[in-house]
Amino acid sequence: MARALLYDYFRSSAAYRVRIALNLKGIDYDQRQVNLAKGGQKEASYRALNPQGLVPMLEIDGHRLTQSLSIMVYLDQKFPEPRLMPADAADGAHVRAMALTVACDIHPLNNLRVLKYLRGELGVSEEAKDEWYRHWVAEGLAALEEMAKPHAGAFLFGDAPTIADICLVPQLYNARRFSVPLTAYPTLRRADETASAHAAFAAAHPDRQEQ
Amino acid sequence: MARALLYDYFRSSAAYRVRIALNLKGIDYDQRQVNLAKGGQKEASYRALNPQGLVPMLEIDGHRLTQSLSIMVYLDQKFPEPRLMPADAADGAHVRAMALTVACDIHPLNNLRVLKYLRGELGVSEEAKDEWYRHWVAEGLAALEEMAKPHAGAFLFGDAPTIADICLVPQLYNARRFSVPLTAYPTLRRADETASAHAAFAAAHPDRQEQ
Repeated sequence: MARALLYDYFRSSAAYRVRIALNLKGIDYDQRQVNLAKGGQKEASYRALNPQGLVPMLEIDGHRLTQSLSIMVYLDQKFPEPRLMPADAADGAHVRAMALTVACDIHPLNNLRVLKYLRGELGVSEEAKDEWYRHWVAEGLAALEEMAKPHAGAFLFGDAPTIADICLVPQLYNARRFSVPLTAYPTLRRADETASAHAAFAAAHPDRQEQ
Repeated sequence: MARALLYDYFRSSAAYRVRIALNLKGIDYDQRQVNLAKGGQKEASYRALNPQGLVPMLEIDGHRLTQSLSIMVYLDQKFPEPRLMPADAADGAHVRAMALTVACDIHPLNNLRVLKYLRGELGVSEEAKDEWYRHWVAEGLAALEEMAKPHAGAFLFGDAPTIADICLVPQLYNARRFSVPLTAYPTLRRADETASAHAAFAAAHPDRQEQ
């Protein structure tokens, strides 16, 4: 079977998630950098493979998969151990809801294309753009802290990593770059700390990727 | 077993998705309106139930579930017929990727709280706000059209409704409210037309809800 190939960008939160998931599953993969800062996602050669022009995209088992959350579910189905989601339906729903709080309610408002539109087309000041960033992060993390509290252990759900942690870690990495205060989220910080010490998460860190 | 209870808002795209899914599964449910336009989601009584203060929230089987996509997966696990996602892993990944293109790449940029922030905190003009709306919808729908083409039938994937259609229909309803041109997306319009004629989708339409 061909090795998996990840179309990646070191600083993309969504690509970072998939790197973590692949590492947790122990799947070997090659990486091809799509430089979002230089518009690599808009090049015809990439658009031909991925009409949406976003990263990540994963070539695996003869398929071309997009959307980080969808990719993670695929990996969980095809490579069941270790599980990234609890087997119980209600526990699974809780973990997915936490992951989606990051993936739908925080990250889409703060990615590069959106921040560029604010500065460019809307002519928003650098300061107001950063405030926008912090506003949505703070709102989302506050909700996530409340959601996580009742069932958190060393990770966001119990003591093993799930897709919720996989979404959390890149979001907090990103939040720190924008100097978002994180003191109000002790449950999230504990999970982030546990995860950061985990080899699969550590190897996926942006500082350890080709840049 | 207690009847399911949906915390709902007629014009919320995410709540609209869950109404469609419940109808497709034939699950009876009560509805409680949380008036987002009047800030009902910020009231302490609702925040106590749902710290994130978003709709939808579904009370079912003794659980309180949030995030529309997570709720739909739960429903598919507990009430398997009719399936909302293909059983095959790669087909499932494709359908999820289409659903997430709406749920992560279009909808979060266009919901009420974001449009309010643009007009209020950022002081963006009504015109520029509408242009922002149309920009992200057009970008997302163009990608979705390309993704859908190869495997679409009467619906976005073959001839039965999936979570991709469940995400599409509320997004197109919303797009029409903002006069987004839809002529460039024949595959999406065909699926939307098929779905709109389906009783489960029709009964979930905002015009048929308490307002």
